Amino acid sequence: MNTPKSVPVALVGCGVVGSATARLLTRDRALLEAKCRVPLELRYIVSKTYKRAKEFELDTSLFEPELDKALSDPEVQIVIELIGGIDDAREVIERAIDAGKHVVTANKALLALHGTALFDRARNAGVSIGFEASCAGGIPIVRALYDGLIANRIDAIYAIVNGTCNYILTQMTSKGESYEQALKEAQADGLAEADPTLDVSGMDSAHKIAIMTSLAFGEAIPFDLIPVEGIEGIKRDDVRFAAKLGYLIKLLAIAERQRSGITVRVRPAFISRNHPLAWVSGPFNAVSVYGHVTGHTMYYGRGAGGSPTASAVVADIISIASGVLPRVFDEFGYMLGENSVVADNPVADTLHRYYLRVMVRDSPGALASMTSILEHYGISIASVLQDEVADSNGGEEVYVPVVIILHTTGERAVLEAASEINSLPTTGERCSVITIVDEYPEPTAED
Amino acid sequence: MNTPKSVPVALVGCGVVGSATARLLTRDRALLEAKCRVPLELRYIVSKTYKRAKEFELDTSLFEPELDKALSDPEVQIVIELIGGIDDAREVIERAIDAGKHVVTANKALLALHGTALFDRARNAGVSIGFEASCAGGIPIVRALYDGLIANRIDAIYAIVNGTCNYILTQMTSKGESYEQALKEAQADGLAEADPTLDVSGMDSAHKIAIMTSLAFGEAIPFDLIPVEGIEGIKRDDVRFAAKLGYLIKLLAIAERQRSGITVRVRPAFISRNHPLAWVSGPFNAVSVYGHVTGHTMYYGRGAGGSPTASAVVADIISIASGVLPRVFDEFGYMLGENSVVADNPVADTLHRYYLRVMVRDSPGALASMTSILEHYGISIASVLQDEVADSNGGEEVYVPVVIILHTTGERAVLEAASEINSLPTTGERCSVITIVDEYPEPTAED
Repeated sequence: MNTPKSVPVALVGCGVVGSATARLLTRDRALLEAKCRVPLELRYIVSKTYKRAKEFELDTSLFEPELDKALSDPEVQIVIELIGGIDDAREVIERAIDAGKHVVTANKALLALHGTALFDRARNAGVSIGFEASCAGGIPIVRALYDGLIANRIDAIYAIVNGTCNYILTQMTSKGESYEQALKEAQADGLAEADPTLDVSGMDSAHKIAIMTSLAFGEAIPFDLIPVEGIEGIKRDDVRFAAKLGYLIKLLAIAERQRSGITVRVRPAFISRNHPLAWVSGPFNAVSVYGHVTGHTMYYGRGAGGSPTASAVVADIISIASGVLPRVFDEFGYMLGENSVVADNPVADTLHRYYLRVMVRDSPGALASMTSILEHYGISIASVLQDEVADSNGGEEVYVPVVIILHTTGERAVLEAASEINSLPTTGERCSVITIVDEYPEPTAED
Repeated sequence: MNTPKSVPVALVGCGVVGSATARLLTRDRALLEAKCRVPLELRYIVSKTYKRAKEFELDTSLFEPELDKALSDPEVQIVIELIGGIDDAREVIERAIDAGKHVVTANKALLALHGTALFDRARNAGVSIGFEASCAGGIPIVRALYDGLIANRIDAIYAIVNGTCNYILTQMTSKGESYEQALKEAQADGLAEADPTLDVSGMDSAHKIAIMTSLAFGEAIPFDLIPVEGIEGIKRDDVRFAAKLGYLIKLLAIAERQRSGITVRVRPAFISRNHPLAWVSGPFNAVSVYGHVTGHTMYYGRGAGGSPTASAVVADIISIASGVLPRVFDEFGYMLGENSVVADNPVADTLHRYYLRVMVRDSPGALASMTSILEHYGISIASVLQDEVADSNGGEEVYVPVVIILHTTGERAVLEAASEINSLPTTGERCSVITIVDEYPEPTAED
């Protein structure tokens, strides 16, 4: 057998993921060559700083301050974009595509916002884009959706894809901490950024579910249409009631087939203690996928961090170098840049059960006013839970939490009813409305 | 774009998986063509009986009693072997390969025993073999091992890959049933065969871990060398003590890198309640994989049944038809038929913690004799648990369970010590020796 010619690659960006990728490509070269016969050659690390070179034992002669040299090297076949952000990253990828290079990226925000255009551009240039690392770090969920589960009509995805949020919610649940306390701890443990907004707002999860939705349902959802709610508003009371009722609160990225079409959202939700997603604690991620023939499958692992993400990046590099991903690009239909964009609102109304916590002044008739509002909206009540009331401190107004579990109902009705309940004179702080995500009905033998 | 030519396939066997596969290929043809541009055509169903044709709404004109017609049809590109068993299935696959057809199979027993020879034959004939369905039904674990996790040195696999055993153990744990009661229930619920030997003996799990080991470690383990222990000997007492100590008993298929090399075994084991595998209940399967860069990832879903297995079979058909799997066959190094067979005993000694339950006659010095035997073998004791003893019924000999948890130690020493303990005059029934599987140490940032 002839020795196969090596495939030179250029890495752009040498931060947390970039340096872990560079190390994997160099230190573990023998392992990678045993696993794939096409040898990879890391030829350039495009980075203005060398600061991680020593820590990761990288050969500083590979470093190049500018992209041009890598792009003009005709032997370089793959450009790996790991600088993150939107504009600069987009420029790197566009220039690489225009130079006829395949691309590998971990950039979820960029793909969620501009994926369709980038994939169109790549197809026109006859190159492919690997993006396994964009969705859940070391968990090969992108491949599961485009390849492993290809024989399925996907009906639902429920995903825990932000480790920071999951860590904070796990701390709130296990230690009874407030959101603020748990966030502070996460920051101290290096599990939350100094500015945690992208994570705790749900935006990072939204980027990932946008990409997964496109792969799973073959429909591209305009990113701006996805309703996103973070964990900042979760109160200790809600965590406590969730536990009391047999649930946990998780930040879920949800895409599901409902009567009205595909609905996509990110929000804190109640999930039953018996659902496998409820077991996912700390910084771990997991994605539950419901297919019409497999039923429920779940993928669990580390959704972030240098090494796990590098694992996904290098899997894509190998897939391109060996000609596997280019075939997928040519032949598979549910792929970014291939799907029609959903024209009308894909997130119209959605049917779920709901948890409602209302702070109610302990006065006669308060519960009756709430239930009559719900009745007016045609919402039926599954159960009501009210803690025993502490003695009123001599005339002071005491608000007590009343928890109402609603039967399956349209979200619009729930939000309108909640808004009316908020304006009742007996209602204290704005009430909590939290979706209850039930097990998606699995196919029967007849499906 | 030209309309691509369809790929005719022949299905051999129309039992539970075969009929589900045939239905998926015909009823869901439009879906499959949307997901992969190469249209598939189910041209033959080779089966001597039509009995499932009506139930699955299959076109009876596709049925052929003999294989010859399909093999001599030059347009047929893929033969799907779903008859199971060893000899006949092997003949089908060999004839298909010799006729230049690619093969898809769900036959774990055949691949575990003769996989290397069949894969060699396929490579020599320039065709590929898809076998996603052989390991865990609807869970795409074969792809995770050869593709998604390709950048990893795999360090360990702990797998629950037999739904019958997991269901029985779940019933024993949650309802306190004996093995015999739980087996009877599983049979009544259609979750265990009338002759459950293949499942409860651990043999089915052994077939699957043999295949996964080859993919993960790049070393083919001669099947006969794998020590296999089933769940038939699990006693209610052991289930109860496991719970008391914070563990569950699961039938685990284990392949791990130990000091002595790759060790592979199937056995009931204690696993911590906090390990994700402990959450896998009822007939579900899950495979935990530890990679040197991803750390721990886990894959969960239905490991058996017609539709979930058909999902995997059709994914392989598509992969072959689209040219993806043939590229994997050409380029990837860790694949059945590619790996060197491990020459010496791959399952030499193995290091774990152990649970020992000894039925001891309540007499002075009984515990001392046991501990001195353990000491003699250099085994140190982590803890001892002895239930309060019921009053002796006037002179009758009373045996009480004494549970000893051993620190990490070589298995050979444990088994020899247990054998000596069994011969003590104070020991009642043969003592239970159960491996405690701890979390495989995840790589640190430096790895």
